[in-house]
Formats: sequence, C-alpha cells, structure tokens
Amino acid sequence: MDMTFTEAPLGGQAYDQYGHPYPEFTQKVCRAADAVLLGAVGGPQYDNLDRPLRPERGLLGIRKDLGLFANLRPAVLYPELANASTLKPEVVAGLDIMIVRELTGDVYFGQPRGMRVNEEGEREGFNTMVYSESEVRRIAHVAFQIAMKRQKKLCSVDKANVLETTEFWKEIVIDVASEYPEVELSHMYVDNAAMQLIRNPKQFDVMVTGNIFGDILSDEASMLTGSIGMLASASLNETKKGLYEPSHGSAPDIAGKNLANPIATVLSAAMMLRYTFDNEAAAQRIENAIKKVLAAGYRTGDIYEEGMKRVSCSEMGDQIVAAM
Amino acid sequence: MDMTFTEAPLGGQAYDQYGHPYPEFTQKVCRAADAVLLGAVGGPQYDNLDRPLRPERGLLGIRKDLGLFANLRPAVLYPELANASTLKPEVVAGLDIMIVRELTGDVYFGQPRGMRVNEEGEREGFNTMVYSESEVRRIAHVAFQIAMKRQKKLCSVDKANVLETTEFWKEIVIDVASEYPEVELSHMYVDNAAMQLIRNPKQFDVMVTGNIFGDILSDEASMLTGSIGMLASASLNETKKGLYEPSHGSAPDIAGKNLANPIATVLSAAMMLRYTFDNEAAAQRIENAIKKVLAAGYRTGDIYEEGMKRVSCSEMGDQIVAAM
Ligand SMILES: CC(C)[C@H](C(=O)O)[C@@H](O)C(=O)O
Ligand SMILES: CC(C)[C@H](C(=O)O)[C@@H](O)C(=O)O
Repeated sequence: MDMTFTEAPLGGQAYDQYGHPYPEFTQKVCRAADAVLLGAVGGPQYDNLDRPLRPERGLLGIRKDLGLFANLRPAVLYPELANASTLKPEVVAGLDIMIVRELTGDVYFGQPRGMRVNEEGEREGFNTMVYSESEVRRIAHVAFQIAMKRQKKLCSVDKANVLETTEFWKEIVIDVASEYPEVELSHMYVDNAAMQLIRNPKQFDVMVTGNIFGDILSDEASMLTGSIGMLASASLNETKKGLYEPSHGSAPDIAGKNLANPIATVLSAAMMLRYTFDNEAAAQRIENAIKKVLAAGYRTGDIYEEGMKRVSCSEMGDQIVAAM
Repeated sequence: MDMTFTEAPLGGQAYDQYGHPYPEFTQKVCRAADAVLLGAVGGPQYDNLDRPLRPERGLLGIRKDLGLFANLRPAVLYPELANASTLKPEVVAGLDIMIVRELTGDVYFGQPRGMRVNEEGEREGFNTMVYSESEVRRIAHVAFQIAMKRQKKLCSVDKANVLETTEFWKEIVIDVASEYPEVELSHMYVDNAAMQLIRNPKQFDVMVTGNIFGDILSDEASMLTGSIGMLASASLNETKKGLYEPSHGSAPDIAGKNLANPIATVLSAAMMLRYTFDNEAAAQRIENAIKKVLAAGYRTGDIYEEGMKRVSCSEMGDQIVAAM
C-alpha cells in the first residue's frame, strides 16, 4: 500500500505555532487527508489559556469539523498482561469489549450553553443535552454492524428512567434493531453499566452510548485492562474517513524521555488500515507483531513486570517492526 | 431515644394503592416526619407504566419535594468481606470513600426538557444541565464539612474542560474552599475519576460531584466493595431532615423469599441516628453490632463464602439485635 504522509499540529503544539488549537493549516491538511493519526493533545502549560484556546478544543474542533461521529474504543486485555489489571485475573482474563461512543452530539455540543444570570438573579452554568433522530440512527447502525462482525451482542446504555434525551435514544435504537435481527440487543442504565463493568465485564461484547456516558464508560472499561498504554481508538465519519489515536493522554511527566508505550499508537495505525483503508490483512500483520513482541517478553515501563525485558519507546517500536 | 413510626408507601407499592408513586398521603406523612427510612422502589411489573407513574418518579418526587439536595453514599469495604470484591484485595482492603452527590439539580431536573421537532424538522430528545451558584455552594459546604470530620481530603469531580455547567461548579467549589483552609481540595475530570476509582480507589477520601456524575460514580464506587448489600445512603435537606435508604435496588428476583441482606437498611438507620438525630453513640452501637456479626461469620447469600454461617434476612436481623 502506498501512502503519503503530511504532518500538521493540533492542540498545544498548534497553539504554540499558530495561536490556535485547530488552526486553518491543520484544518486544510486534515480535510484533504483520508485518515488522521493523532498523538495526545494536552499539557499543564496550557491549563490557564482561555477556554477556546485550550488543547481539548482542538480535539473537539476536529471531531466536529470532520463529522467524526463514531468513536470506537476497544478495551482488550492481552493474556500476557492479565496481572496489570487491578481486577482479579479470572474476572478480566480474555476481556474484549468494543465501546461505540457517539462523538459529535449530546451535551458536548448542544446549544444553548454557557453561564448567565437566571430569573431569580442568580448566576448559573448551563448546557443542553440533545440527540436528534438521525444522530442516533447513524451511530446505532455503526454499533449493530460492528456487533455483526463480533459476538452479535449489543448493549445500549442510557438513563431512560430519568432523561428524555436517552429515552428517545432508546426508542430509536430499538427501531434500528429491526434491521439486525441476528443481533441480541439489551439496554442498561448508565449507573448499572458502571457497576456491571466492574462486577462482570466479560458479559459485554459491544456497548453503544452517547458522548458523555461514552466518555466515562470507555475510560472506565479501558482501566479494567490495567494497561491503557495498549489501547487504540478510532473516530469515523460517514465516508470511513477517520481519526485514529491512542486512548491514553499526553503523559506530560514522561514526555520526551523515550519512556512512553508506543503500542496504543501503533494499534491505532492498525485500526486505520482496517477501517479507513479496508486492509484487514495489513491491520492483522501489525496486531500479530505486537502479540509476538509481548509473548517474547518485551515491556515498556508502564507494563513492566519482574522477569520481563524492559525496553524504551523506540526499542519497542524497533521490536514491533522486526516482528513484522 | 423515643421515636414514633408511621408507614407510607412510595414507588410501586404506592402506585398499587393510590395510583401514584408519591401520593398525597405519603407526601403528608413524609413532610411531617423528621426522617424517612426507605426500602427500594422498583419492579419489572411497573416498567410499562407511563413515565410519570413509574416508581423512580416517586423517588425523584420525594427528593425534590423535601429538598434533599445532599446525597451521602459511603463506599466502605469491611475487612471480612475483602474477597467479595472483583478487585484485588490489596487494591481495595480498607477502602473508605464518602461520595457526596448533589441530588436535586443538574440534568435530572433542569428545564426545558422533553421531545420535540427541531428547526430542521427532525425529532429530538433534549434535557438541560444546569447548576446555580446557591445550589453548588450548599453542596460544597456539606462536602467540606464532611471532609473536616474525616481525612480532610476532598476531590471535586467535573468535566470543566467541556461543560460550562461544571466549569461554573468548579469555580464555586474553589470559592467555598477558602472557608475550609484545612481541607486539601483537588479537582478531577469525571472520565479520569471513573478510571482512578479502579486504578487506585484508596487515593480518595471524600468526593463531591453533581447529580448525574454522582449517580454513575457512586454506583461504580459501591461495586468496588463487591457487597452492595452492605451499603447505606443518606439524602439530607438544609435542616438535617433526611431520607435514608440502602444503595441497592429492589432485587425483584429474591423479593419475599427472606434472602435479602438487611445490613444496608440497618446501616441506613444508623446514618439516620447520626445525621438527623445527632445521636452518634446510637449510630455506632448499630455499626459495631454489624461488625461483630460479620466477625462471628454470619453471612446472607449475597456475601456468603465457604466456611461461613449462611443465614436468612430475618436471622441476620436477629443476630444484629442480639449483638447490640
Ligand atoms: C479531552 C476531552 C475533551 C476528551 C473528551 O471528553 O471527549 C477526552 O476525554 C476523550 O475521551 O477523548
Ligand atoms: C432510580 C433512579 C431514578 C435513581 C437515580 O438515578 O437517582 C437511582 O439510580 C439512584 O441512584 O438513587
């Protein structure tokens, strides 16, 4: 496969160079690209910037700009790393959940929002949680299609007993389900889902939920594995264009020290080959190389255990390339 | 202490008797009471009722009606039950977190809300997330005061990088903090909090957050203990009037079989003595009795382990009374 690479900054680095976390230059490059591979965006030096200039805004900006409504976040536990989890091995061994999070709607983007003085003369902060029918429909289709390629079990997470937004969500998901009779659909309240992920995470195959619940549950699920440095994610639009990034943050404490675990980023590239370029063989070649390297005992510091071979970020990269 | 008890139905039972989950009779009794001790409210037979008639509505109704804005949910792991957790014993042994959840605001009660056809002619569901200054201020005071009586560490959970409601929340919490210089205040994003509860839950002493984040995180935290049948909760108004209830649900599968674990309800009564009636001695007497009964090996089915003495709900109650 022939690929052309172009670099453009996002988040903190973009602010440093262009004074904006998602500058025009980056917009142009990313709009023209088939896929975007992203590092992590934050850092404490940006914490006191005005809200619209902070690194997170770059991330929210590119998601909305490219219409990346479908965020796929696998939570997978590699057998070699079962000890890394804070959960008992028998509870998490073999864990393989795919969380499908809606990414361009909900209270993240709903209008109106802001701070104001209310009718009683008091200050208040407010946001709007909202989902339209087409927004729910398209993410539901993505989730059902992914379930069809896996264990055919889909759990839709809502708070339909309290929030009309998610009561509506549930209604549309049920409607879409009729097109996927082979998929076993269940529904769970978000508070219960947060519990069940701890009580018995292996009950789940694919989960689908809105932006804010997905933010919380996908991070919770990834921490079940104990090795968030291993987890990739994809954010797709309607034409398979995608942004691919590790699930972990920018880890400012180890930045520049050649210590980070590169596997999440490498696996993100594998997801890119799978979802944007439909090249399943290439994706699996990368994934298998990573399995080999783990089986051979190579570990970056975050997943190091006694008796294993501790390697730097670049050494891990070299090992993966060699294993391919 | 002399107490007068009155019974009134809420939720499903109230619907059966009065056609409403929080009927006038119950409103009168509860408004006149100093404290309310509540069982659990749901059941599958009510799932198809109209939304305003469902059991949950009774719960939301009584919270709002009595102004019970401060929900205290301890997540405590008794040393005897460390094995019940799905987390490794060393991660959770000695766990003692108090989650302070705001209970009468946020997207639970914000207006406007509902379903509608939007400007593009599409159906949508929507809710309003909102917190006023006084709402945040009073729950912050409750949280700081509780932290003062514990390890003096308070973590406020928000999503201030995305939601103005919680950016405002954070600002007010910081303002209130100046009145409690001894308390060490930290802030955490809700997605990170969901992870940290799994990675290292013992880093937390008191956590304070809004209604919906609190719903999710308090359930997550309670499941860390593996024994939700042991966890009590209190919901207080500004004059110490309180509603006390177990953290677990109505467990329709074992209802009426004398199998439930009564400890969460008994501990709720202990919280009632502590918070509404300022009778710390009586509260501790109950709590100590429960510790004794556990140490003596008595277990209901939900917390049973080999070698222990399996007892029914009523036998457990008798043992607690005997231990007092
Ligand atoms: C950085 C933040 C805006 C972002 C989000 O909340 O979506 C992050 O938590 C994520 O999950 O990608
Ligand atoms: C039953 C439901 C309305 C309620 C809530 O969401 O507050 C419950 O989950 C709780 O936490 O007490």
